[in-house]
Amino acid sequence: MKAPGRLELERFPVPDPAPGAALLEMSYSGICGTDKHTFRGETLQYAGTPHERQIEYPLICGHENVGTIAAIGGSEPLLDSEGARLKPGDRVVPAANLACGTCWYCSSGQAYYLCERLDDYGNSLNAKAPPHLFGGWAEYLYILPGTPLFRVPDELPDEIAVLTEPMAVTHGFELARRLYNGSFGESVAVIGVGPLGMCHLIKAKLLGCGKLIAIDRLPSRIEMAGRFGATLGLNAAELEEDELLARVREHTGGRGPDIVLDCSGVPETFVTSLRMARVGGTVVESGAFVDMGPVAINPNADICTKNVNVLGVGGETAESYRPAMELLVRNMDRLPLDQLVTHRMALEDAQSALEIAQSDGAMKVVLSGSIAPAA
Amino acid sequence: MKAPGRLELERFPVPDPAPGAALLEMSYSGICGTDKHTFRGETLQYAGTPHERQIEYPLICGHENVGTIAAIGGSEPLLDSEGARLKPGDRVVPAANLACGTCWYCSSGQAYYLCERLDDYGNSLNAKAPPHLFGGWAEYLYILPGTPLFRVPDELPDEIAVLTEPMAVTHGFELARRLYNGSFGESVAVIGVGPLGMCHLIKAKLLGCGKLIAIDRLPSRIEMAGRFGATLGLNAAELEEDELLARVREHTGGRGPDIVLDCSGVPETFVTSLRMARVGGTVVESGAFVDMGPVAINPNADICTKNVNVLGVGGETAESYRPAMELLVRNMDRLPLDQLVTHRMALEDAQSALEIAQSDGAMKVVLSGSIAPAA
Amino acid sequence: MKAPGRLELERFPVPDPAPGAALLEMSYSGICGTDKHTFRGETLQYAGTPHERQIEYPLICGHENVGTIAAIGGSEPLLDSEGARLKPGDRVVPAANLACGTCWYCSSGQAYYLCERLDDYGNSLNAKAPPHLFGGWAEYLYILPGTPLFRVPDELPDEIAVLTEPMAVTHGFELARRLYNGSFGESVAVIGVGPLGMCHLIKAKLLGCGKLIAIDRLPSRIEMAGRFGATLGLNAAELEEDELLARVREHTGGRGPDIVLDCSGVPETFVTSLRMARVGGTVVESGAFVDMGPVAINPNADICTKNVNVLGVGGETAESYRPAMELLVRNMDRLPLDQLVTHRMALEDAQSALEIAQSDGAMKVVLSGSIAPAA
Amino acid sequence: MKAPGRLELERFPVPDPAPGAALLEMSYSGICGTDKHTFRGETLQYAGTPHERQIEYPLICGHENVGTIAAIGGSEPLLDSEGARLKPGDRVVPAANLACGTCWYCSSGQAYYLCERLDDYGNSLNAKAPPHLFGGWAEYLYILPGTPLFRVPDELPDEIAVLTEPMAVTHGFELARRLYNGSFGESVAVIGVGPLGMCHLIKAKLLGCGKLIAIDRLPSRIEMAGRFGATLGLNAAELEEDELLARVREHTGGRGPDIVLDCSGVPETFVTSLRMARVGGTVVESGAFVDMGPVAINPNADICTKNVNVLGVGGETAESYRPAMELLVRNMDRLPLDQLVTHRMALEDAQSALEIAQSDGAMKVVLSGSIAPAA
Repeated sequence: MKAPGRLELERFPVPDPAPGAALLEMSYSGICGTDKHTFRGETLQYAGTPHERQIEYPLICGHENVGTIAAIGGSEPLLDSEGARLKPGDRVVPAANLACGTCWYCSSGQAYYLCERLDDYGNSLNAKAPPHLFGGWAEYLYILPGTPLFRVPDELPDEIAVLTEPMAVTHGFELARRLYNGSFGESVAVIGVGPLGMCHLIKAKLLGCGKLIAIDRLPSRIEMAGRFGATLGLNAAELEEDELLARVREHTGGRGPDIVLDCSGVPETFVTSLRMARVGGTVVESGAFVDMGPVAINPNADICTKNVNVLGVGGETAESYRPAMELLVRNMDRLPLDQLVTHRMALEDAQSALEIAQSDGAMKVVLSGSIAPAA
Repeated sequence: MKAPGRLELERFPVPDPAPGAALLEMSYSGICGTDKHTFRGETLQYAGTPHERQIEYPLICGHENVGTIAAIGGSEPLLDSEGARLKPGDRVVPAANLACGTCWYCSSGQAYYLCERLDDYGNSLNAKAPPHLFGGWAEYLYILPGTPLFRVPDELPDEIAVLTEPMAVTHGFELARRLYNGSFGESVAVIGVGPLGMCHLIKAKLLGCGKLIAIDRLPSRIEMAGRFGATLGLNAAELEEDELLARVREHTGGRGPDIVLDCSGVPETFVTSLRMARVGGTVVESGAFVDMGPVAINPNADICTKNVNVLGVGGETAESYRPAMELLVRNMDRLPLDQLVTHRMALEDAQSALEIAQSDGAMKVVLSGSIAPAA
Repeated sequence: MKAPGRLELERFPVPDPAPGAALLEMSYSGICGTDKHTFRGETLQYAGTPHERQIEYPLICGHENVGTIAAIGGSEPLLDSEGARLKPGDRVVPAANLACGTCWYCSSGQAYYLCERLDDYGNSLNAKAPPHLFGGWAEYLYILPGTPLFRVPDELPDEIAVLTEPMAVTHGFELARRLYNGSFGESVAVIGVGPLGMCHLIKAKLLGCGKLIAIDRLPSRIEMAGRFGATLGLNAAELEEDELLARVREHTGGRGPDIVLDCSGVPETFVTSLRMARVGGTVVESGAFVDMGPVAINPNADICTKNVNVLGVGGETAESYRPAMELLVRNMDRLPLDQLVTHRMALEDAQSALEIAQSDGAMKVVLSGSIAPAA
Repeated sequence: MKAPGRLELERFPVPDPAPGAALLEMSYSGICGTDKHTFRGETLQYAGTPHERQIEYPLICGHENVGTIAAIGGSEPLLDSEGARLKPGDRVVPAANLACGTCWYCSSGQAYYLCERLDDYGNSLNAKAPPHLFGGWAEYLYILPGTPLFRVPDELPDEIAVLTEPMAVTHGFELARRLYNGSFGESVAVIGVGPLGMCHLIKAKLLGCGKLIAIDRLPSRIEMAGRFGATLGLNAAELEEDELLARVREHTGGRGPDIVLDCSGVPETFVTSLRMARVGGTVVESGAFVDMGPVAINPNADICTKNVNVLGVGGETAESYRPAMELLVRNMDRLPLDQLVTHRMALEDAQSALEIAQSDGAMKVVLSGSIAPAA
């Protein structure tokens, strides 16, 4: 990505990894909603905070990655997340972020993506200087020393393993459960069942939830949500908000859902989410990491009086990868997880892949780590 | 209160309590921010939810109560919150609310004020029908069967005991701590150090917090906050928002507070709170239980990307009274708790008391349970 | 039960329920491990504490109940746990316990079975005085006012609904998860897969756990555990403890399970549980509510140094019934829940039912609410 | 320590720190209970688990350290726990442990001392090979790369800063509070108010507890506990256990404490702790990290039926240091924290210091980082 809206193929030399680093031969790299924003030049993050930063170009996007260890730098063993030694040929999912380990956030046990000096692949790590290859939309990915590496079990195919990162982002669901004063039988609505919303819905399903409501504007997504356990699908393009809310309440004992997972990527659904959650319910705001402008909400009526909690979740944690991957592995028989990746495309088709990713009929679109069209 | 803006003295017969009920001779009843809203006719609550309701007049306000048992109905023992028998002459703080015990909220272990059929003294319980006396701004308060009653320890004077209810509302602080991924050394800002904000500040101080920032527009309140442990006081009337935020960040290691307690009673400070909290911090929205209209916030930038959590706290829980009272008792030597009630006024002066309660120089204003001017 | 070891049929008059009370025509009542202890005269509970009590005879056992409302006392509506009105003919599961609502435990929000003045059906409520019918091993059960009543959904047959109470006891699993610093992918071992252990195993399975180890001394139970999702079954009668532990560790990445649910009913397995749990793991002690004598454990090596947590769970909570029932309803297709009740017997066969309940081949044994042999 | 029971002074060359490492000029190093066990040769830890290990001699003990940066290896900046650069002359408390960062425990977000490849200063890190200086009972301490370093605020004197590590171990108290279903006004008993118990008592006091009971066999400790806020002191050497329990219950509303912190260092008090805790209470087992043999407990009566939870806490976490230090700093005026270190002794007097540390009249005994007697 040379600039907003401009994707080009460029060749870089294949680097020798420095001591502690590694080179990953890419299998697949997902297209994330954040990538779409970056493509549109919507990149200012954490405005007004010590974490503020501006993405710089040229950039190799791609932080939802799976690949094969191609080379290991230095003589020290490279370890996976269980402390076992990795060798060339092993398949891994690398963490999307690399935390410094010493700033206030890191040394306070906060989520690793809150690190004040965070390096994130395909995002703050750009392609300006060698070794250049800091994003997954490439044949090779350069893995910096200290990046957590999660070994892919043999039985997990690449096209499911590539979902590990978005599935790891759903840890907000568990956080919401900590606030949910009940136990496990809760009702859950997901607004926006694109790839991230679908991962949240799958998590809710597999962790024992009851009512599962999927809301979107694309029919193909609502239909797919049904295959993954949604007990009610609603098309927000066809319903007035009041009717939408009435339908949701009707499905949840007249109260509204215990947990609303707002994964739409647009700010307007936050307003709907606050109205939709039951009195005392929780809204997880996980849809859009890029500033899309303000919306009007009513903090007294919708939050204070109604006792609603809102949890902002800006990414996955370092600890949420392995459980996410394990959840995928052990439910391959139960849910059609292999249907989530709907399109596998070659690197040279990245631009059209970006467009497809935003269209009806597509769920997760991934780029294969090769220039020729993927099988 | 005969209608919005109209307070009058009216005499009702002193009722005989029915079996399980009791009659309380009032000592003091506080003026709460909610009462001020009711006086202004701002009373619609839970709009659009199954909990929606409209306050009806005539109304005897007053839900922050302390008094003495005057009569007990029936022959069954009346029990306090430890199961010990109460007798006439015992001092108690009655709970402000009475939950049904059987609705979905009650039988799910939710906070008692989320009850679908909640009766709340001085609020939904009006004075239309006998026994009329359902508010604390009176000589006697009629206590319905099942209302939790908290015995006042001998060493706790009435003018501190009357703060039990607002202190019980601060349970949102403990909830915020559950989300705070650290331990106890956090920085806290309170926006709006009126009575409720001051109770939050006291709680934070007594529960071991570090930096304690008090923000208000009334100098007397900021000054009083200093006497209760604030490590920084800021007058929002004298600072641009950006400068205010800069001063707060400077006092908190450049990051912003871990927890922001928004107790101002106006919706605009919610916007400030979101901006003020550190990345990954928590905002407790506890200021205004009445719909004051919308404000514009940015869910992507201020909540999702910044990982901010927001907790709506619309009232005290049944379980938070006794700990609140115990906290007051055992810290009477440590903090000047007897300074919190700045004005004690007779029932006939209720209207001017309401005005004083909103002015500089006043903290908690209480009405004594007598018509003649209080001592 | 006239005395330890002596079960007899006795006829009592069918009572008219007092106001607020109700009469339940029994469908099924389960035989619980506690009943077996009571039958053996092992009844001293909470020795040396304010809760100490001695069960008194004659007693109608049976606290795992399901039946049909036969009569409602008084004119006030009788409400279910969602606040909806119950009428004769409605099927309900009544709570096993009735808490006072005012003692220190009740007013502190503790689990309802910690109430200092707890009445428990089939246990502390005996058959000495009218209306006598305080246990489920009968044609009718007398429901005291205030007892929570959980409506049985139409699609849930009696023979699964009768499992609601033991399934509600498994809330210790959720509590353990709160301490488990991970998310959901944990490994779980259940020691003693009798009815209570099997309910724990089912809970773990349905709430998304990974490795699920079932340990027992009866082959039929281990076999049944496999049908409910156990990934490893071990017969403790055939393995030395060291080998048992080695097999468990081998199945859990060499570490041992994150959570060990000790449901055996004998104290010796507590020692095994402490040894089995991984460093930093949690043991839920939920097996035996009756004093079975001491065992030797090593608090330094097995708890402190090893960072093991132990959670004592003496019963279900009032809030855990409805989620338990909902979990059963929505997983009837997924797990063979109708196989859990292996024997349905008539009241006159209660004594042999008690014997069968402790033998190989039996899982849950229930008594039908009729004298003639059940269908 | 050349062998169990044998302490000798030995001179090692002052090493040049390798890149990323540092050299600390010691101010004080505390004597911990673990050191006393090591001195007695009681060193087997985690027996039968993957974490099992045997301490090896020669050993330089001392993991409760405070000192001044003397030298920094390499050219990369050495950072404190807030990410700020350290330079020679800065005072720091180094973490007692160094975790690998990649094993299952580290990558699951568990407490850092659960690391499978933990290096702990003065314990598993011995003095056999260069650079030898891996314990605080020395003039210099060699700090390995990656060891967390906590900057000591100017206003905190060395003799209080040296308490940071034991104060950090008290994080079990916060964990217990997570289980305590109430909020903050709980009653707490500390069994064994040696240095670790006293730190727990101080934590409980400063975090807002109510009743605070100190139990020990040494009169000087009980007396000191009173100066730090104990509301009841009991000498276990003068009371039969039943009387002790009766006195504790009398002080806690007849129920027993909500939380019992067992810090005695002997296993027998675990039995007492289980009996002492109220029904539904929590016992934190934090006293002895070394296997002191078994005791007989009753898992049915004392844990299951009584609903008691037990939390094993084997050490401080990496995240608990800074809050611990901050708590000390901001309460220097409130509590006589400078009285906790009762003896400061020279390195050559280490053996008599160990003896003094176990006698009446001593609380924390520290060794100064010099051979000549300390001031």
